[in-house]
Amino acid sequence: MSRILIKDLKNHIGQEVKVKAWVDAVRDHGKLVFLVLRDRSGSAQVVVKSENEKVFAQAQTLKEESVIELDALVKERPDKMKKNEINGELELEAQGMQILSLADVLPFEKDADLNIETHLDHLPLTLRKNTVRNIFEVQATIISAFREALKNEDFIEFQAPAIVGGDAEGGAGVFELGYFKDNKAYLATSPQLYKQVMVGVFERVYATGKVFRAEKHATTRHLAEYTSLDFEMGFIKDHRDIMDMLEKVTRYIIKSVTQKHTNIFDENKIDDILLPEEKYPVMTLKEAQELIYKETGRDNRSEPDLEPEDERFLCSWAKENKNSDFIFITHYPVSKRPFYTYEDENMPGYTKSFDLLFRGVEISTGGQRIHDYKMLLKNIEKWNLSPKDFEFYLQAFKFGIPPHGGIGMGLERLTAKIMQIKNVKEATLFPRDMTRIDKFINTKE
Amino acid sequence: MSRILIKDLKNHIGQEVKVKAWVDAVRDHGKLVFLVLRDRSGSAQVVVKSENEKVFAQAQTLKEESVIELDALVKERPDKMKKNEINGELELEAQGMQILSLADVLPFEKDADLNIETHLDHLPLTLRKNTVRNIFEVQATIISAFREALKNEDFIEFQAPAIVGGDAEGGAGVFELGYFKDNKAYLATSPQLYKQVMVGVFERVYATGKVFRAEKHATTRHLAEYTSLDFEMGFIKDHRDIMDMLEKVTRYIIKSVTQKHTNIFDENKIDDILLPEEKYPVMTLKEAQELIYKETGRDNRSEPDLEPEDERFLCSWAKENKNSDFIFITHYPVSKRPFYTYEDENMPGYTKSFDLLFRGVEISTGGQRIHDYKMLLKNIEKWNLSPKDFEFYLQAFKFGIPPHGGIGMGLERLTAKIMQIKNVKEATLFPRDMTRIDKFINTKE
Repeated sequence: MSRILIKDLKNHIGQEVKVKAWVDAVRDHGKLVFLVLRDRSGSAQVVVKSENEKVFAQAQTLKEESVIELDALVKERPDKMKKNEINGELELEAQGMQILSLADVLPFEKDADLNIETHLDHLPLTLRKNTVRNIFEVQATIISAFREALKNEDFIEFQAPAIVGGDAEGGAGVFELGYFKDNKAYLATSPQLYKQVMVGVFERVYATGKVFRAEKHATTRHLAEYTSLDFEMGFIKDHRDIMDMLEKVTRYIIKSVTQKHTNIFDENKIDDILLPEEKYPVMTLKEAQELIYKETGRDNRSEPDLEPEDERFLCSWAKENKNSDFIFITHYPVSKRPFYTYEDENMPGYTKSFDLLFRGVEISTGGQRIHDYKMLLKNIEKWNLSPKDFEFYLQAFKFGIPPHGGIGMGLERLTAKIMQIKNVKEATLFPRDMTRIDKFINTKE
Repeated sequence: MSRILIKDLKNHIGQEVKVKAWVDAVRDHGKLVFLVLRDRSGSAQVVVKSENEKVFAQAQTLKEESVIELDALVKERPDKMKKNEINGELELEAQGMQILSLADVLPFEKDADLNIETHLDHLPLTLRKNTVRNIFEVQATIISAFREALKNEDFIEFQAPAIVGGDAEGGAGVFELGYFKDNKAYLATSPQLYKQVMVGVFERVYATGKVFRAEKHATTRHLAEYTSLDFEMGFIKDHRDIMDMLEKVTRYIIKSVTQKHTNIFDENKIDDILLPEEKYPVMTLKEAQELIYKETGRDNRSEPDLEPEDERFLCSWAKENKNSDFIFITHYPVSKRPFYTYEDENMPGYTKSFDLLFRGVEISTGGQRIHDYKMLLKNIEKWNLSPKDFEFYLQAFKFGIPPHGGIGMGLERLTAKIMQIKNVKEATLFPRDMTRIDKFINTKE
């Protein structure tokens, strides 16, 4: 008999079927054992009767998370016993069982509300919880929708390198590794320079790969590695073309996840995501700071960047006034952006750059990049970087590149905000940070 | 006027259009300058007449790879001047030009047959060649088709970590990096252990990410980082279920690339890829060695693995006798496979593992994995590894996991074989090896 997926049981009422699944729950009622089975497609209840001695004895040995093959009869429940849930109208009556993997007693109740460290210590087990699986089902849809949205706009995927020869952006927080023959190499903090090279090749490109940050912060926001969703496009007028594309892509992602995962959103009581009928609201950093001052009295007008509190305020403001969970903030000062950022001719000292805020935090950063070879060279020097370190990259500019720009967006942070999860580590399958690579690291302090 | 893509010019004959593109070629004929323009969608010829003084003067300053905006009239060529190529029926007559980026003189003729080191030194330029762009267009389709094929079979994507706590597979060639507070970490050589953990979560999973090998070989086959296409699935009978899935996936990939890129295959004179009407041929390692002995006299029957020469022979054999560019070789000895490989009860000493050979080389390795906790623990010890290092991973087995298996397949190698490229580095956008990270590394010898 070939396997029937649990989601298809409803088409087999009255028939004998074979199901292969994990035991999600066991309840021994003396003369009856109830099992809840879970496979990749859903879950269903099984009743094991004591009359069927062999199967009954097997069922009594089962611990949660054991894996079985079950031969069973699919029975329709009497109307008054029907439950308003998937497979709520049916029940399996066990007839034969093969135990494929007998689980140990779990170290805690599966639905227990664990502290984050216990949760992370036991990921091979805790990732199996329905609420946790939901997060990563949504994550898979986000990354897939990101790629789809860009493919629809003529972008082509490329594989950006993870090992790089230097700390290209001149920032802190880079991991160093031993390369061959005592040479040093580094882990990429972003695919930025390669994306720009690829604009010269394909005009419109995207990448979805890991980037690495050796940031010495053990917070709910920091990860040592994360999945970066990046695109870059040529022949733009200015940063607003990039903002339009990012708006298109994020709308596509939100529509994809909410349509595909209606059940998950309902079950987890996740707030509807507000997409304005008009375009996403936009303001410059200066305008944002003026608004904050006017509305809250907090005067950050001389700051070069937003505080977390500011980002939260601007998002509530956009929600209330523009019916939008998204808001763009543009024109960060030259000093706060990397060397390749384009300065706005009409607003000297400020860049054609932007952050996209969503539900209280920045989820994407982007802007127009410098495409003029000489201007770029001058900026590398101005940033106290060495042009020699950029020789390879600079070829893209020496040999013709159009005005271009792009964005980077963290998959895990976006997942967390969509799913309304506070700690980004819970939206990361196997999070790495200062204190943890799978297991807790002895930090020798 | 808004931009028209070059591929759409044929719909604008007789009209004025704006084109934005790279200058693929410049030919100055004295009273006429001919340009070939290239954008992401294709290329087309432009004629610049001396009557139009301003544009003519601009055209004369252009070097190949410069980027321009061109206002032009789309003219149909007289019948005898039509060329049998895309846009061969039309020509643009330049009317106005804006130079967006003026390129330097190229360091070599664009179509010159470069040695590999010169090619790699100048990737931001050499990647723009049509033949090279073709390779990476096909590569983008391969990775996309891999994901699609698996999504169609109910697999879900996950993000495997790149930074790991140890060298899990106990092999050589692992990169070490400085982590936080003097701790060491390593770069993943494969997502293997995480894929198995994820079988416990989603039953069927795939990942497409970078893996790293510190192999001290400077050959045409070795890369320090490459993109690994991986899947893993639960509830299998044995390795043959994995082979069936891999066959389905590779057939899907081949069909996708050949259908989508007919032009590229034709232009680059790539041989048709043979997919047998029956299933891919399969033989055990022993059978393969007997066949090689019988047909060539080469006696490798006591060897635990195939030599490159053997792989080439088996592929020609499959091509001639089975009309197939693919052939599976199964049952490698226990000693040649990692600790988690399942030993065949019916053939002690040999594993339920396989290689898939394609056009002369192994392009994928896979098999059934041990799912029994105690057997796995015993093997870890047998392989002289420490169970303590595997505590995190072992939880997946302690708490119930079905019989499962999967495969790994290198994207770059598969691309190279499909495109009939000899050196895998030419099928890798930014190859890293012993001697190179973008630029040549001073190897201090």
